[in-house]
Amino acid sequence: MGLVVQKYGGSSVADAEGIKRVARRIVDAKKAGHEVVVVVSAMGDTTDELIELAEQVSPLPAGREFDMLLTAGERISMALLAMAIKSLGHEAQSFTGSQAGVITDSVHNKARIIDVTPGRIRTALDEGNIAIVAGFQGVSQSSKDITTLGRGGSDTTAVALAAALKAEVCEIYTDVDGVFTADPRVVKKARKIDWIAYEDMLELASSGSKVLLDRCVEYARRYNIPIHVRSSFSGLPGTIVSNDNPNQPEGGEMEQAIISGVAHDTSEAKVTVVGVPDKPGEAARIFRAIANAEVNIDMVVQNVSAASTGLTDISFTLPKTEGQKAIDALGRVKEGIGFESLRYDDAIGKISLVGAGMRSNPGVTATFFEALSEAGVNIELISTSEIRISVVTRAEDVPEAVRAVHTAFGLDSESDEAVVYGGTGR
Amino acid sequence: MGLVVQKYGGSSVADAEGIKRVARRIVDAKKAGHEVVVVVSAMGDTTDELIELAEQVSPLPAGREFDMLLTAGERISMALLAMAIKSLGHEAQSFTGSQAGVITDSVHNKARIIDVTPGRIRTALDEGNIAIVAGFQGVSQSSKDITTLGRGGSDTTAVALAAALKAEVCEIYTDVDGVFTADPRVVKKARKIDWIAYEDMLELASSGSKVLLDRCVEYARRYNIPIHVRSSFSGLPGTIVSNDNPNQPEGGEMEQAIISGVAHDTSEAKVTVVGVPDKPGEAARIFRAIANAEVNIDMVVQNVSAASTGLTDISFTLPKTEGQKAIDALGRVKEGIGFESLRYDDAIGKISLVGAGMRSNPGVTATFFEALSEAGVNIELISTSEIRISVVTRAEDVPEAVRAVHTAFGLDSESDEAVVYGGTGR
Repeated sequence: MGLVVQKYGGSSVADAEGIKRVARRIVDAKKAGHEVVVVVSAMGDTTDELIELAEQVSPLPAGREFDMLLTAGERISMALLAMAIKSLGHEAQSFTGSQAGVITDSVHNKARIIDVTPGRIRTALDEGNIAIVAGFQGVSQSSKDITTLGRGGSDTTAVALAAALKAEVCEIYTDVDGVFTADPRVVKKARKIDWIAYEDMLELASSGSKVLLDRCVEYARRYNIPIHVRSSFSGLPGTIVSNDNPNQPEGGEMEQAIISGVAHDTSEAKVTVVGVPDKPGEAARIFRAIANAEVNIDMVVQNVSAASTGLTDISFTLPKTEGQKAIDALGRVKEGIGFESLRYDDAIGKISLVGAGMRSNPGVTATFFEALSEAGVNIELISTSEIRISVVTRAEDVPEAVRAVHTAFGLDSESDEAVVYGGTGR
Repeated sequence: MGLVVQKYGGSSVADAEGIKRVARRIVDAKKAGHEVVVVVSAMGDTTDELIELAEQVSPLPAGREFDMLLTAGERISMALLAMAIKSLGHEAQSFTGSQAGVITDSVHNKARIIDVTPGRIRTALDEGNIAIVAGFQGVSQSSKDITTLGRGGSDTTAVALAAALKAEVCEIYTDVDGVFTADPRVVKKARKIDWIAYEDMLELASSGSKVLLDRCVEYARRYNIPIHVRSSFSGLPGTIVSNDNPNQPEGGEMEQAIISGVAHDTSEAKVTVVGVPDKPGEAARIFRAIANAEVNIDMVVQNVSAASTGLTDISFTLPKTEGQKAIDALGRVKEGIGFESLRYDDAIGKISLVGAGMRSNPGVTATFFEALSEAGVNIELISTSEIRISVVTRAEDVPEAVRAVHTAFGLDSESDEAVVYGGTGR
């Protein structure tokens, strides 16, 4: 049996009971013969409470100190977890990100991992210990300051350690049973996906599925580390994210489209720049202004210009939280570019269908649009990639649109309620 | 202006308001032209809450993990304090014990400092920063594990840094105005001491005064670092602990006894070993048994043996928390030593008078005993050192005994209530 990296999120270790439950699960993996490395997040709402304290003492907390503050949360949970394992009669040692060799750049609050040197972890494992590592944190290569990895940082820590330690699998424990064909809160007939390819998972993640963040999937794909997303409560097998479907007979790759699921996202807004002179370089000037304001954008669509006016509209979507920045940045270049006006709309939603072989199967796009049309959902923007089709609609249409698409592609489970598949027989 | 180390305890930084108040005080010192290094404890009850969490997950938490857990508390307070200082427009950087170069042995939960290498602190100061350091913690030289320094650890951190950085003074901020001639809760007329010698402060600390612990005073004496104990709330000058009285004219050392104060302690119990054969080696066997059980004892008294029986009694005092261990250890050697019985008494109290030149002034001892006698207080044990006389009495007699001794040595202030001296004009 090989080395397993397990990651437990804050909801799994929210209190002493949760920590003890997780400890038993870890010990089970050790008893089964694995070497076990555990990455743990801060307990429950600890991080939010620390952020609130920071806001009370300082309106704009400095990055270095903010990171020092936040990393206290994982320090608490990892020490408690190591204690709980020891009280079950097994050896465990906890390590901060710095002790675990998680080396990052110096961008506080959203540092990126540039190297992992898990010498101490390897030694602890060789001595028979279970190694517990603080998620979400590292140490900057240049200044030796403590850094945090930003959103999804603990998942990324787990995958990075799995890669550095050449783990068999990286298990991400969460409070749901795995990745579903759609959000089970919206689509009652959503099914758990037993296996999904990295690329499809990446598209789902960037299209609104919140189970895994794209950053961690990207890392796993680069180092070819299988991720197993599963529940820390149920103990059932979850979703495997990897290169090769373990349940697929070798050489059995099919040419037909394989739909992975339907994702949706209502956290974005749409900005339309109205009446842009349709000549070379205008779009570039608009998006340079956006980039200079450090605003991340998602979909971009330019309408065909009306021949009579020589003017065109450019629309893009972006996180609602970035909306004000984008409007301000564009307002400052309005005269220079000479567009007519700006429209801001935050009552939109995005529905994305993700699956392999989509582009070479024109029927997929047709079925997708037909399903939306039959559900009476109006499409405002369209964007496609090799393995994804996304549309923007009114936010209030999103649940109905997701259900319609889910049904149209035969993703519905037979039961009325979302069921959890055992992962066999497929 | 030189370098100042300031230490703030948990009650001074119990909430966001407290942190902001402390930040303003630190900035004042910086504005006055000092280089400022701040050592900070965990906020309010944080440490107790973490200990409670540990008890919930593990009945006997491992030392290494327990230290990892507890050090999260200072990490939170130091980061918040650095943020608060920055929001006042000054530069600050926070450092863990490890980053600050506090090197310790490997005894978890009560590590001892073996070296301080404050290179990063020095650099931060040279760059114009205020340096904030986590108290109570270090890193073990051998295993590079995080350690904690045990009770009074933050004070010791402050004094150790002051020594390593050659500070002008180490200011210990607390919730009282300084060191008093007696506990102001017991003696209303207790006076704040403007200056006290290291030796006297050591005796007061080991006799029950809780303002400073002996460990930190011992460290300050060894490196000749003046300590200034003062209130973080009032801003008034407090008590200077040093070699030389700054208010004493040079060459004006007097031969008469200088009484520093009266300390009391009701946290101890008394064990009497009854009917010990009065022959060489018996006492040694008793205290070897105690030592093997790792019980720390305080006063030891052996009565004159009764000539008729050849038996004697040996009494000693020890912290109540160690009582059971001592009784168990002695029970196991009862037959071997052949004493008659054990008596355990935890309703005792200790009153200590501390002052220089005591032994060469026999009148001091006489006045002390007369005062107790006039107050109707019975003396059970007596122990003396060069600069201290301690007696054991009934616990319920302690307040009256302390007041009587305080008055007899002219320590009472003229006002009815404990007053705070300004430290000038004396």
